[in-house]
Amino acid sequence: MATVASAGERALIDRIRARLRNQPSFLTLGIGDDAAVIEPSRGELDVITTDSLVEDVHFRRAWTAATDIGVKAVAVNFSDLAAMGATPRAVLLSLALPPALPLADFDALVDGVVSATEAAGAALAGGNLTRSPGPLIVDVVAMGSIRRRRMLRRDGGRAGDQLYITGPVGAAAAGLGMLEAGVERQSLDADARECLARYERPAARLRCGRLVAASRSATAAIDLSDGLAEAVRQLAEASLCGAALTAEDIPVHAGAIAWCKRAGRDPIEFALAGGEDYELLFAVPARRRRAFLAAVGRSGCRECVHIGQLTSESGVWIQRANARIPFPDGFRHF
Amino acid sequence: MATVASAGERALIDRIRARLRNQPSFLTLGIGDDAAVIEPSRGELDVITTDSLVEDVHFRRAWTAATDIGVKAVAVNFSDLAAMGATPRAVLLSLALPPALPLADFDALVDGVVSATEAAGAALAGGNLTRSPGPLIVDVVAMGSIRRRRMLRRDGGRAGDQLYITGPVGAAAAGLGMLEAGVERQSLDADARECLARYERPAARLRCGRLVAASRSATAAIDLSDGLAEAVRQLAEASLCGAALTAEDIPVHAGAIAWCKRAGRDPIEFALAGGEDYELLFAVPARRRRAFLAAVGRSGCRECVHIGQLTSESGVWIQRANARIPFPDGFRHF
Repeated sequence: MATVASAGERALIDRIRARLRNQPSFLTLGIGDDAAVIEPSRGELDVITTDSLVEDVHFRRAWTAATDIGVKAVAVNFSDLAAMGATPRAVLLSLALPPALPLADFDALVDGVVSATEAAGAALAGGNLTRSPGPLIVDVVAMGSIRRRRMLRRDGGRAGDQLYITGPVGAAAAGLGMLEAGVERQSLDADARECLARYERPAARLRCGRLVAASRSATAAIDLSDGLAEAVRQLAEASLCGAALTAEDIPVHAGAIAWCKRAGRDPIEFALAGGEDYELLFAVPARRRRAFLAAVGRSGCRECVHIGQLTSESGVWIQRANARIPFPDGFRHF
Repeated sequence: MATVASAGERALIDRIRARLRNQPSFLTLGIGDDAAVIEPSRGELDVITTDSLVEDVHFRRAWTAATDIGVKAVAVNFSDLAAMGATPRAVLLSLALPPALPLADFDALVDGVVSATEAAGAALAGGNLTRSPGPLIVDVVAMGSIRRRRMLRRDGGRAGDQLYITGPVGAAAAGLGMLEAGVERQSLDADARECLARYERPAARLRCGRLVAASRSATAAIDLSDGLAEAVRQLAEASLCGAALTAEDIPVHAGAIAWCKRAGRDPIEFALAGGEDYELLFAVPARRRRAFLAAVGRSGCRECVHIGQLTSESGVWIQRANARIPFPDGFRHF
């Protein structure tokens, strides 16, 4: 079987180049030189982020198709751009490849990266290939742009701002749970299949982030990569506030509720702690509520809901029936 | 012993932040949000590159101090910027960390990254931390800027252009050979110690790349990361030329010559094939020679030498005594 080791570095780079379609005019110099050269967007700031997927930490090759790994590696980065309100322009792909990786998997992974990148109007501009003596590591860098006055940060929230999320939570964690439990894909209903899809092929809320940023209706934003609880905690702490959520307002995905029933888990705790829902969390002052919801509506995002507010009292809490309980921890990488 | 796993992700990020000194005004938003935000340099293009160091492929923890790994991870990226003539502005650091990595090694590695970054006037602007079930991987992204008309590419060379390199070669490969052979550091002479230093703590030729770019005297440039032979081959191929070197003109480092004698290797072949000499290779038209050498001199680079020329005939050759022989292969990652 052909492997990345048998192909050689130059042939791998040629295979990447052969897959590129979108070479926008701002890409002055793409793959093939010592560095990529990009013309900045006039009057805008550069926004840059990096995030990686590590085999056996973030994915298992036995569970997830190589294309999906590529799609997800881009989506997790674009989600960070979405949380700033930025528009993606360029991606760099840095791969640490086990020598025995089948060439077909390499091609599929690159296909996933290129399709997710180009679907957002961005270009794969460069990167790096190296050998890995251990896991496959897919490290993506995403660059975007935003006007200075539109930039969304996580530290701009104020006590009294209302908290919204752009869609149901717990779905990705339920999808991961199903993979870990070895469920048969054929046996799954539509809700469960959606949970798997959210875990395997997340889509960043780029349009929503951009339109909310343009409306200047939100004071702060963050994505839910590390879970809802962690996102609320980090936004609140950065904004020097506390936060209070109401359990019954939290939209737990139907597939996650069904999964929790089967697994004997509490759906609210599951949804608060579960990571990898690439939704966005916004803090919105009451007087900007209509402008915010109008921007969200224009983005095509139909499931945005109010879940609580920032408080002057510090600490992050959830009101549940008559009890007020502190947040569980989110996903930690160590 | 304290490890990165016992410290936890947030504490690690705090430890990075505590080490930062240089937060230039163009860094609108640094570590701590979903993405970094950077104000582009007015009238200039963004130059961006990524390169990684993988444990047991590019370094061994038993051989190399953690600080040096950090310094080198930045230098290999800055060398790519130098080859474009660009000035570094920002760095992102993406680490895949074995959980048992001692916290002291993490701190030292970050110290190396920050010191190399800030020494070049750039800022550590963001990054990512994740767990690795295998090797330590240090993935660095470097961003810089350059004026459009000054940009150095590898594909601008023309037949007849003269080839220059900025310093002696073979030193880093000799340093690696010494480490592999388990030499005693105390027993080494000054030349041999310099070979080790070139391997372990390379410095990118940033000032030389920038001043040559500003002088617009070179038609093409590339760095020697993958060895002299590979650099000449890639610059020539990208420029649709061939190349001819003269063996006696190639400046093999004194420590590498001594190492080859001991190891029974041919110094010229060793120096052509050996990678990781972070010198630059320039193609210079004869009529720009004086401007080029003046720019190199202003950069403080004292060891720049002429090694051959680009040819209209394709293929890359070296003239040695009375024989004309094809190039050996450079370092390949697979």
